[in-house]
Amino acid sequence: MTEKQTWSQRFESALHPAIARFNASIGFDIELIEYDLTGSQAHAKMLAHTGIISPEEGEQLVTGLEQIRQEYRQGQFQPGIDAEDVHFAVERRLTEIVGDVGKKLHTARSRNDQVGTDTRLYLRDQILQIKNHLREFQRVLLDIAEQNVETLIPGYTHLQRAQPVSLAHHLLAYLQMTQRDWERLGDVYRRVNISPLGCGALAGTTFPIDRHYTAELLNFERIYENSLDGVSDRDFAIEFLCAASLIMVHLSRLSEEIILWASEEFRFITLKDSCATGSSIMPQKKNPDVPELVRGKTGRVFGHLQAMLVIMKGLPLAYNKDLQEDKEGLFDSVNTVKACLEAMTILLREGLEFRTQRLAEAVTQDFSNATDVADYLAARGIPFREAYNLVGKVVKTSIAAGKLLKDLTLEEWQQIHPAFAADIYEAIAPHQVVSARNSYGGTGFAQISKALATAREQIGE
Amino acid sequence: MTEKQTWSQRFESALHPAIARFNASIGFDIELIEYDLTGSQAHAKMLAHTGIISPEEGEQLVTGLEQIRQEYRQGQFQPGIDAEDVHFAVERRLTEIVGDVGKKLHTARSRNDQVGTDTRLYLRDQILQIKNHLREFQRVLLDIAEQNVETLIPGYTHLQRAQPVSLAHHLLAYLQMTQRDWERLGDVYRRVNISPLGCGALAGTTFPIDRHYTAELLNFERIYENSLDGVSDRDFAIEFLCAASLIMVHLSRLSEEIILWASEEFRFITLKDSCATGSSIMPQKKNPDVPELVRGKTGRVFGHLQAMLVIMKGLPLAYNKDLQEDKEGLFDSVNTVKACLEAMTILLREGLEFRTQRLAEAVTQDFSNATDVADYLAARGIPFREAYNLVGKVVKTSIAAGKLLKDLTLEEWQQIHPAFAADIYEAIAPHQVVSARNSYGGTGFAQISKALATAREQIGE
Amino acid sequence: MTEKQTWSQRFESALHPAIARFNASIGFDIELIEYDLTGSQAHAKMLAHTGIISPEEGEQLVTGLEQIRQEYRQGQFQPGIDAEDVHFAVERRLTEIVGDVGKKLHTARSRNDQVGTDTRLYLRDQILQIKNHLREFQRVLLDIAEQNVETLIPGYTHLQRAQPVSLAHHLLAYLQMTQRDWERLGDVYRRVNISPLGCGALAGTTFPIDRHYTAELLNFERIYENSLDGVSDRDFAIEFLCAASLIMVHLSRLSEEIILWASEEFRFITLKDSCATGSSIMPQKKNPDVPELVRGKTGRVFGHLQAMLVIMKGLPLAYNKDLQEDKEGLFDSVNTVKACLEAMTILLREGLEFRTQRLAEAVTQDFSNATDVADYLAARGIPFREAYNLVGKVVKTSIAAGKLLKDLTLEEWQQIHPAFAADIYEAIAPHQVVSARNSYGGTGFAQISKALATAREQIGE
Amino acid sequence: MTEKQTWSQRFESALHPAIARFNASIGFDIELIEYDLTGSQAHAKMLAHTGIISPEEGEQLVTGLEQIRQEYRQGQFQPGIDAEDVHFAVERRLTEIVGDVGKKLHTARSRNDQVGTDTRLYLRDQILQIKNHLREFQRVLLDIAEQNVETLIPGYTHLQRAQPVSLAHHLLAYLQMTQRDWERLGDVYRRVNISPLGCGALAGTTFPIDRHYTAELLNFERIYENSLDGVSDRDFAIEFLCAASLIMVHLSRLSEEIILWASEEFRFITLKDSCATGSSIMPQKKNPDVPELVRGKTGRVFGHLQAMLVIMKGLPLAYNKDLQEDKEGLFDSVNTVKACLEAMTILLREGLEFRTQRLAEAVTQDFSNATDVADYLAARGIPFREAYNLVGKVVKTSIAAGKLLKDLTLEEWQQIHPAFAADIYEAIAPHQVVSARNSYGGTGFAQISKALATAREQIGE
Repeated sequence: MTEKQTWSQRFESALHPAIARFNASIGFDIELIEYDLTGSQAHAKMLAHTGIISPEEGEQLVTGLEQIRQEYRQGQFQPGIDAEDVHFAVERRLTEIVGDVGKKLHTARSRNDQVGTDTRLYLRDQILQIKNHLREFQRVLLDIAEQNVETLIPGYTHLQRAQPVSLAHHLLAYLQMTQRDWERLGDVYRRVNISPLGCGALAGTTFPIDRHYTAELLNFERIYENSLDGVSDRDFAIEFLCAASLIMVHLSRLSEEIILWASEEFRFITLKDSCATGSSIMPQKKNPDVPELVRGKTGRVFGHLQAMLVIMKGLPLAYNKDLQEDKEGLFDSVNTVKACLEAMTILLREGLEFRTQRLAEAVTQDFSNATDVADYLAARGIPFREAYNLVGKVVKTSIAAGKLLKDLTLEEWQQIHPAFAADIYEAIAPHQVVSARNSYGGTGFAQISKALATAREQIGE
Repeated sequence: MTEKQTWSQRFESALHPAIARFNASIGFDIELIEYDLTGSQAHAKMLAHTGIISPEEGEQLVTGLEQIRQEYRQGQFQPGIDAEDVHFAVERRLTEIVGDVGKKLHTARSRNDQVGTDTRLYLRDQILQIKNHLREFQRVLLDIAEQNVETLIPGYTHLQRAQPVSLAHHLLAYLQMTQRDWERLGDVYRRVNISPLGCGALAGTTFPIDRHYTAELLNFERIYENSLDGVSDRDFAIEFLCAASLIMVHLSRLSEEIILWASEEFRFITLKDSCATGSSIMPQKKNPDVPELVRGKTGRVFGHLQAMLVIMKGLPLAYNKDLQEDKEGLFDSVNTVKACLEAMTILLREGLEFRTQRLAEAVTQDFSNATDVADYLAARGIPFREAYNLVGKVVKTSIAAGKLLKDLTLEEWQQIHPAFAADIYEAIAPHQVVSARNSYGGTGFAQISKALATAREQIGE
Repeated sequence: MTEKQTWSQRFESALHPAIARFNASIGFDIELIEYDLTGSQAHAKMLAHTGIISPEEGEQLVTGLEQIRQEYRQGQFQPGIDAEDVHFAVERRLTEIVGDVGKKLHTARSRNDQVGTDTRLYLRDQILQIKNHLREFQRVLLDIAEQNVETLIPGYTHLQRAQPVSLAHHLLAYLQMTQRDWERLGDVYRRVNISPLGCGALAGTTFPIDRHYTAELLNFERIYENSLDGVSDRDFAIEFLCAASLIMVHLSRLSEEIILWASEEFRFITLKDSCATGSSIMPQKKNPDVPELVRGKTGRVFGHLQAMLVIMKGLPLAYNKDLQEDKEGLFDSVNTVKACLEAMTILLREGLEFRTQRLAEAVTQDFSNATDVADYLAARGIPFREAYNLVGKVVKTSIAAGKLLKDLTLEEWQQIHPAFAADIYEAIAPHQVVSARNSYGGTGFAQISKALATAREQIGE
Repeated sequence: MTEKQTWSQRFESALHPAIARFNASIGFDIELIEYDLTGSQAHAKMLAHTGIISPEEGEQLVTGLEQIRQEYRQGQFQPGIDAEDVHFAVERRLTEIVGDVGKKLHTARSRNDQVGTDTRLYLRDQILQIKNHLREFQRVLLDIAEQNVETLIPGYTHLQRAQPVSLAHHLLAYLQMTQRDWERLGDVYRRVNISPLGCGALAGTTFPIDRHYTAELLNFERIYENSLDGVSDRDFAIEFLCAASLIMVHLSRLSEEIILWASEEFRFITLKDSCATGSSIMPQKKNPDVPELVRGKTGRVFGHLQAMLVIMKGLPLAYNKDLQEDKEGLFDSVNTVKACLEAMTILLREGLEFRTQRLAEAVTQDFSNATDVADYLAARGIPFREAYNLVGKVVKTSIAAGKLLKDLTLEEWQQIHPAFAADIYEAIAPHQVVSARNSYGGTGFAQISKALATAREQIGE
């Protein structure tokens, strides 16, 4: 294996085969190959642009790299374990293609700034893809919301029925969560989109390179101000993993709700066959595998975030081999978030149906209009805390009597407090209860109209 | 305990004492009291402003709340475990002070939006404080950097000497890391600075409140668009904990370096007595406790981030009691980050001294100028990869001969390659090696001048 | 502050006050004081036993330490921040009490082995306490199980009704989980119960100490074989935190179920007033705060586990100050686990009631007997997979027809497959469905009798 | 895809292709195939043994499953994504081979108990393999220790030189850590080695199965007492991941030390070419990639532990699809721990060499013998704390005078304290300093002889 290691001349003996396997990253960093080629092409152009190599040499390198891209896409270039990493694999193949000029590609560059460039180019792309997935997901939420403004659903706190809400309002809560995700990814993007290319191994280079030129070619918005920082910074990966974890938090919450809604006890939705699975043994089962898996996959993204933090803790400057461990968790998180968003979008769009009749019944069969009785009194001058206590008693005696609030006679109401009048029945009817919560951002129908318009605008439609 | 629970009227029997203790948050949420008072004052003003209560009532509430603030500051108001939480403690005391009008304070509000408001007011303040701490830390870094532009220090990758750098350059890497922290906290702040007040328990309220008015009184930039989201969102805490974790990553890296530098083997710095501690048994010891503790405390902040993510995973809408667990980890993280920044600032400012003579010797006693030899050849037309291989051999034979590169004769150089000339000695002298890395963001002295100016500007001086 | 630091003689100037605060552990390690006193008494006895000090001196030290214990218990000994840590606080006070002989206590000992001893003594005690709490919890589970052998409850997979089970069987699942916790804590205990006392600062001591003697006095089962390992090992804390995390996993699962059961949709239990709380605004609410808080507190214990792992990662031998960070997370985890076990025990014992009528109805109103139809056919020679497919079709058509399986006529059954006979109705009745799952560990009533006996034995009753 | 899903008969329409991909586990659970075949063979034998199927049918199933094993080993059986999971893939292929009897295999079994069985069989095997790797690692440690009893190396606390120790003593610390790992894995094994087979989907089965029989065939030590627990327990995976994390903690600590030792500043070891790598740009570099990667990989194992805890938190009984997420992190942790142990074993065995001359010099050039001076006085009746303070002063003045302790004249010693005599020089010579720490488990040479014998016995040689 001696002749293969690019750095072998200072070394007398070959790497132990097991150690070579242990060190090699080609098994996973091959995912970066197109970004590596793009980055190298920009570097080659800059070398020519600044006169470090000749224009012809620059041209040869760029063309040779493009040939490797085609070979890779056609499955002809498949570097093995002996390549150590994607960077050496490319450089070696390049030299086969273009000859000795290939050995000039690495002038004024190190793998440290090179891999940092590749990873940022990769993540930049992936963030845009995830943002698109978020938009798709939001569109489906918004579509269902628009069709269900007047569909009422119990609203919960502590998983106890609290106050009925519009189903649209409920779904728009998730739209707002993912809107924050979308904004947050934008902020992360700005800190991903910084070029480390030209930071060299750690200290910059003695060659008259032009970092702004490569940054421009690669559409980086800024360049790292400090070379030591540039090669050893992985903040951008951690920050992305945190944003990814938050997306998973939101999806896991919706997943939990869908699982609840699909249960025999809630029966708020019907799962369609296209998005449910069966049991190997219980013939009646129709399982909400998608939201369960999404909920489970939340753990792995949290885990990758933790792993990356652990990797960085206490590392002295500048580059350390530990940083090679940044990739697998990042790639898996990207793929997980994309797959979960896609699966949840399909599930919402075509995999479930709200059982509106069941929902309509549900909101009439509980005490979730009790706050409205307290508010009714408070609006008539009774201090809120007194009104609240009064209604607490009413609920207690009603439960004991097996009655709901709507079943009380006007006489009974007035025995509780003389301020009650006939309009109490109207005040506690579910549709009115929802409608009356017309404070900004509340579930009142007028608010929802506004909220739908706002949401439509937020997601750029 | 029955009569004490504000929500006791629907309940027939008292809470089990052990359960009351288990549920109570007053032990830690007392830290929010001033924010709670401020939030309640804004709410009271809004109630009067919108005519939900009379102007006189509003005035009474605001004044009563102010009185509680004074009582608290003077140590006269110290609610105990029976208060359940800070919100009830305040409301109860308020009613003692102002009488029945106190019972109107909670009109059109729930603890769910109230505690969300308090926590955001708290965190908003703390973020600004942390940003100030970051600035202090950066100022010290910058001061030392300015005094050490020409102090050379070995630059490392893999903790192997790689290329010498200016000490200023090394320190400015940390300035750039904390500059990202500073920017990131700004982004987090924008998502903390959103008012949930008026979201009610979950669905808004039936009262004609004015959320924009309270938001303005409390200097919130935006208000939550969706009430369900407003009361159950803890993204802002998680996002802050991630930003806090990144600050700790950066401090832990510097801590590791200071610990190394203070070792007998490195001897790059001397720790001063004011910032070092001794051993209980070994009389000679002078230990770098501060950076060790900072490195250790990194774990607790990572832990709090994970805890908060775990809390949120899979929670159905809207508020759940689990969310009460958001506070202790948040408070501890805030306090930890502030204390660590403060301690590191003191340590850098007055607790350590660079041993410049030792550093000057260090950079002459190794092969960290080898890249410059390869660059020397590459600049004379030899393909970089060839030059690199050639120098690899030189290093190998020099080590065997017990020589450094500067000890080779010109004849020996020319035997290696005829392109070498007398200027090779100049090219590999440490000062020149550093000076020559003059690419943007590199360690070259000209770059450092620019970098210092940039940094000075970044931190607003 | 100079004169106060025990290690001050090698130091010329005092510790910076902010740094002193930052370093001090007295704020939390005071929790170890009684263990510290006990450990020091054993050490003093050993010093006398081996002749390192005189018998009289040994006596004086032991008596002086006992006096501190009394002072502490009576609130007279309350060391402040200037004490640095509990060890120095005790040593200083001891010297005040017994005079110069107090200065001999630290002979042949270091704070490194001392604090390791204290922490292990503490954790050993706490593990026993937690095991007792586990037993209390198991006893309540067992009591309820014994009263509910014939109470049927839907059994779920994927939160879809799968097959009905005995409520006893369901509760015994948690008994088995906590039985593993109990066993696991026993294993952890064995690795906590090892004495580091006498390992010195890192390398042992030059004095003729007797480590087996102190170990025996302190009831340690073994002593550390290697002094470097002894002072820097925190495996025992991590292993405990993992066991604690698993207890929380189990409690969080039960909590989730109780929260579901208490919902309006499940209505499987009624929460009693003594263990439920209300809302500040919604008068009808009765919230399952206890299980919600337990579920939320799960995150903090996971977080402490991660924090401790992070602290230990990559620490060179032997003791490092980072290890001071082991305590707060450990103490908080111990307290959290104890409080959660206690709260859940109370909740089960007196805070909730199963609604047996609702449960009885529930198990008759679904298709959770479908497997029994497939088993019925398979027992009559139809290959299981065929039987399963057949029943799948029956379920589909029944749902479409709005029927349950019990509603099918014998004729309809026989059209499906001629093997069906009149005994199919018996086979699919809930009581029979449960009874028939009589494989070992299954829900069949005969099995539950055995399981109850086994459980009673496992928990030593 | 309709006809392919084994559970398709209750379903009218096919699974959405993207959802099928999202749900499928065949991509990773194929790793379990041989365990699945073994488990199924035991199940088939039991079905025949208990008369649930005929002996001939049992024979056919066992033979058919064996054929699949051969096909798999020869690369002929490669199930694709349409197989959903390894269990269905096997059952389908079996039915192709043996015909309709293949449809009887799943009688009295569910995928829930099946996959639990497979995973435990897998992990049981892997634990034994990891224990073997631990032994290999320990043997190498022991070999080097035996050759280096009298090689002295500085001992550190706080990375400050504390007291010199024998290199053997230092290495034996790691032997003891990994000995705990070995014991701990034994405890974990006992909780992995419990059979869930026969727990069915959740509640047991109506068939007269014999769980003890399958347990015996599969060498399980115990069987799950409760079927609900049996199918939903993942404690064993979490407990293993904690044990794996602790192995990584230990390896990361040693890695950190090796990285330090290989630095230019420490120069305690020389890395050999077979286990070091170079730089792409700096020709002189020889990097300790192996320990750096091991240190970095520590993060991913911690991350997998956290992920698994998160997955389990708050899951209601019994099986939920979330549990499918248990595998990838488990497999990756197993592979990581094995690879890291193997790489570190090779590194120690043939990849590094201690520079004994440098070490010998190191231990004479510092104040790490200061404790011995204090002990010297304490042994002559001066209270330890006084002696300690006295020596602190000596160190301070010596540092100021540029002297080491050995350079003080007898006169100077006696000015410090009259108790000093000529034997002080002997007492502070490094070899004596080490030799004198002869307390049990200390670094004294007599202790190391014992420790080596103990270690040899512990690892069974």
